[in-house]
Amino acid sequence: MYRAPVEDIAFALNDIAGLGAAIEDGAFPDLTPDLVEAILSEAGRFAGEEVAPLAMIGDEQGARLQDAAVTMPEGWKELYRRWREGGWNALSGPGEFGGQGLPQMLGVAALEMWNAGSMAFALGPTLTMGAVEAIEKHASEELKALYLPRMVSGEWMGTMNLTEPQAGSDLAALRTRAERADDGTYRIFGQKIFITFGEHDFTDNIVHLVLARLPDAPAGTRGISLFLVPKFLPDGEGNPGARNDVFCSSIEEKLGIHASPTCTMIYGDGFAKDREPGAVGFLVGEENKGLACMFTMMNNARLAVGMQGVAIAEAAWQRAHAYAVDRRQGKAPGFTGEGMAPIVLHPDVQRNLLTMKALTAASRAIAYSCAHATDMARAKAGDAARHWQDRANLLTPVAKAFPTDVGVEVASIGVQIHGGMGFIEETGAAALYRDARIAPIYEGTNGIQAIDLVVRKLPTGGGDHVAGYIGELRADAEAVRASNLPEFGRTGEKISAALDDLDAATRFLQGCHTDGKMHAALAGATPYLRLFALAAGAAYLGRGAVASKAPDRIALCRFFAENLAGETAALRERVIDGADSLAEAAKALG
Amino acid sequence: MYRAPVEDIAFALNDIAGLGAAIEDGAFPDLTPDLVEAILSEAGRFAGEEVAPLAMIGDEQGARLQDAAVTMPEGWKELYRRWREGGWNALSGPGEFGGQGLPQMLGVAALEMWNAGSMAFALGPTLTMGAVEAIEKHASEELKALYLPRMVSGEWMGTMNLTEPQAGSDLAALRTRAERADDGTYRIFGQKIFITFGEHDFTDNIVHLVLARLPDAPAGTRGISLFLVPKFLPDGEGNPGARNDVFCSSIEEKLGIHASPTCTMIYGDGFAKDREPGAVGFLVGEENKGLACMFTMMNNARLAVGMQGVAIAEAAWQRAHAYAVDRRQGKAPGFTGEGMAPIVLHPDVQRNLLTMKALTAASRAIAYSCAHATDMARAKAGDAARHWQDRANLLTPVAKAFPTDVGVEVASIGVQIHGGMGFIEETGAAALYRDARIAPIYEGTNGIQAIDLVVRKLPTGGGDHVAGYIGELRADAEAVRASNLPEFGRTGEKISAALDDLDAATRFLQGCHTDGKMHAALAGATPYLRLFALAAGAAYLGRGAVASKAPDRIALCRFFAENLAGETAALRERVIDGADSLAEAAKALG
Repeated sequence: MYRAPVEDIAFALNDIAGLGAAIEDGAFPDLTPDLVEAILSEAGRFAGEEVAPLAMIGDEQGARLQDAAVTMPEGWKELYRRWREGGWNALSGPGEFGGQGLPQMLGVAALEMWNAGSMAFALGPTLTMGAVEAIEKHASEELKALYLPRMVSGEWMGTMNLTEPQAGSDLAALRTRAERADDGTYRIFGQKIFITFGEHDFTDNIVHLVLARLPDAPAGTRGISLFLVPKFLPDGEGNPGARNDVFCSSIEEKLGIHASPTCTMIYGDGFAKDREPGAVGFLVGEENKGLACMFTMMNNARLAVGMQGVAIAEAAWQRAHAYAVDRRQGKAPGFTGEGMAPIVLHPDVQRNLLTMKALTAASRAIAYSCAHATDMARAKAGDAARHWQDRANLLTPVAKAFPTDVGVEVASIGVQIHGGMGFIEETGAAALYRDARIAPIYEGTNGIQAIDLVVRKLPTGGGDHVAGYIGELRADAEAVRASNLPEFGRTGEKISAALDDLDAATRFLQGCHTDGKMHAALAGATPYLRLFALAAGAAYLGRGAVASKAPDRIALCRFFAENLAGETAALRERVIDGADSLAEAAKALG
Repeated sequence: MYRAPVEDIAFALNDIAGLGAAIEDGAFPDLTPDLVEAILSEAGRFAGEEVAPLAMIGDEQGARLQDAAVTMPEGWKELYRRWREGGWNALSGPGEFGGQGLPQMLGVAALEMWNAGSMAFALGPTLTMGAVEAIEKHASEELKALYLPRMVSGEWMGTMNLTEPQAGSDLAALRTRAERADDGTYRIFGQKIFITFGEHDFTDNIVHLVLARLPDAPAGTRGISLFLVPKFLPDGEGNPGARNDVFCSSIEEKLGIHASPTCTMIYGDGFAKDREPGAVGFLVGEENKGLACMFTMMNNARLAVGMQGVAIAEAAWQRAHAYAVDRRQGKAPGFTGEGMAPIVLHPDVQRNLLTMKALTAASRAIAYSCAHATDMARAKAGDAARHWQDRANLLTPVAKAFPTDVGVEVASIGVQIHGGMGFIEETGAAALYRDARIAPIYEGTNGIQAIDLVVRKLPTGGGDHVAGYIGELRADAEAVRASNLPEFGRTGEKISAALDDLDAATRFLQGCHTDGKMHAALAGATPYLRLFALAAGAAYLGRGAVASKAPDRIALCRFFAENLAGETAALRERVIDGADSLAEAAKALG
């Protein structure tokens, strides 16, 4: 069962990602180290004691659809009520509308814990937070006043409606249409698929944010508008009133996250019998500027999905470690006890466990560093704000893709450590392997993240931003070396080598931009993102180990540097020299 | 839907693994190239047209247990009947008992196809073949005459009963007991878990091979005997007679292979009410020599499981490729058609597809080479036979572990290529990801395979056998270079570099044996096996590409060499320099 690693999380926040120093510098005047610890401990308690125990029942029962109504698994509605009443939904919500307005780092740390307790449970609030953000940034004062207090408290939940069958990654292909009504509202018609928490029984109302096209909109992504479409239209007192013309026609049978209803939503098909067809929608932002509004929430949603990867990896590691300590098979080298040895003493099992633990720690460090950049961009002004926003933009694709790939890898190793029991659903390791698999796909596939990193983020500041970032990581490698601690082994040298690989690959890809070799850049994007994350992860773990000097953290950092980071050399080669053979072999793909 | 890649399979058999040359040399007098092709084509047709269409229904319905009887999914009993009547069960069975006695290479090639059609379906016959082999090699003439004709034809099926709750990988911990009866038979008492096809409705009788201990047996693995325990005791005419005291008490809810019943079997608990408790068993081989008998079937079972990895990888590749050709999203570089481009034109998708294809081809080459060695050991005599048996022993752990790891990796990439649809069960990609996950676990976890390779196989012939093998692979690298085909790019040099890494890591591990550094050898086993397989896979693909000179095969080999084989450098480092940091970090694991 999951127990929140509050100490590891606080360490990653404060000593690696920079929250500790930022608090000291006064960047977050309302925050003290004690408050941070109190929030983490209490969130950890709720995640471990309240959320996690309902994860398996959620997986087994799943969300069920009957007559356009979705029933959540046993105990889940009550769990959501307790969660909301604990104030957790409001944690990083805007203060003006009842939120606690805490830095994103804390919201993200809590999110890791909810997801580790149950990814299916955490998904609903994640979507609501994204919707809150888009409404706060782009909607009219009237819409904000009506919807935000209820959404920040969690009384109502929100959704994001982007995908259509023909428009997955490519939003230019959207067909859902919006028509102007005489009263300044709009009528929405169309079908959306893969809508997370599109329908459920947690709350009395659900607030859908829907991308659609006006009849006179330009083609492509410049003709997309964003609409707010509530399930029930609020009455004069703001309570759920008339049923809107939107309903859930089906939910998907999925590999994992069974308790998270993935809905097909139908807009404007005459579901509300007492009115003209057409779902009543309210424009958010300006007409045809919907994509910009969506991007606001997408950046943070990407980081939120990255946290799912960290969370699943942590949960899988904990389960596998507990099993390995308990399970006895065979003789291990040096084991002198009676009977069979706990498998945790077998070096091959240790390699698996340490790989899980080290990849999880590196993922967490990257994700929290990304959250820190966002917080600093908000806390600062002028050039400093822009610097931190550039940093957040640079790290977002890495923080989405690497941890979610790691989540799949680590969950898979977790099944392996359980042996035959890992394949039995009752054990719980398999459910993590199933749940983990969606995170590299949604919110922009990891391939798209890699392309975003290479095509849009590396050129920032004429390439200077990423160069500065690598420079900061080099200082971490130097600090490891300068520490002169023999326990580091060859850690400093290995981190430096990984950063050399990152440097070379980065320069190559920046050269592709200027040389018009976009094909090579696109072909190398995925190995580059992995290389970036391994090098950054190694440096971050080094930074933390130097700061704490704790033997366990030094040893884990060294394991990462000496056993995992070496992959960067081959990745560099793949980036720089791999495109030609890829293009040749691809001719046979048709 | 799966279509057997008959051409690729024939190519791997003949031009890489050596069947073509062996037929020319007269090693298999009953075999002609035409016969090989005819068998492959016909097996491919059956796998694609008959087995594959029932895979999804098997996954959805699963095997169901009621009152100790297991009902197979709709249409499966009939499918098994057609399969058996087609003579497929007898393909590599011994001629003396009605089998076709074909070389194992053909059996293994057919097995790839059955598993790609449905891994759950292929499992039953795989276990039966293993049981046939153990009985043929070790049982009395009487038992052989009674059981083998029915098991070779597939009229009856067989099982392997090793695992108990406390005895998974460590068979020394077995508790199931056997008592001698007055009539020369035995009575078996105990519980076995994870028994594949332990109960089902395919056949009128099921023949269990059961490991158990006699009361006076020595402790540990030298006190284990093997017994044949039929579900129904054959009557005077050899037909199923009295019900034996063995039954299936439960079946597991598993992550995948739902249609393969994984049974808990209870022996001697009084299930057959009309007789004294105790399952009637017949000794196979000598008392206390059961483990040696089991090892006979385990080596081939390991290769058979390796084929599951190849099969799942092939099936996943085919599905993903078909989807990528069909699905349109976004703009791809160089795409000049109307609307959105097929995603197969995106370089990042191409990288994923080629990675799937190349890893599958390398896995197949390794597995077939292992089967070839077994066939040659049987076809030859004296030193040649011993040489080939050493080769089969060396390659077996690699042929089990690498393809099954690849199966998981490739199935995971397959889900990824499908995007959101990959997470929907209906699409079928997810089922492969679920099915694939058991193969690295059963028949000895892949960690155990790696340890077997390092501890037992590398020292063969004082280390000379593996050195000779690497020498053969070097000739392949040389042939690539000597071909002077510019299409190979830097393939020859890359294969050589991978073989240098293999050489260095091999010498290091052999040194650990003599230096008493077993801990380092155990710690490096898993990365070593991966390194071994990547280097061998690259050389094999080079061998095939030189032989065929087909542009597609050269390009795929080059992609493997320039994009995938580079990992060997980091793996070598992990083997040679990774153990210290692993041991240090492992101190925190408890």
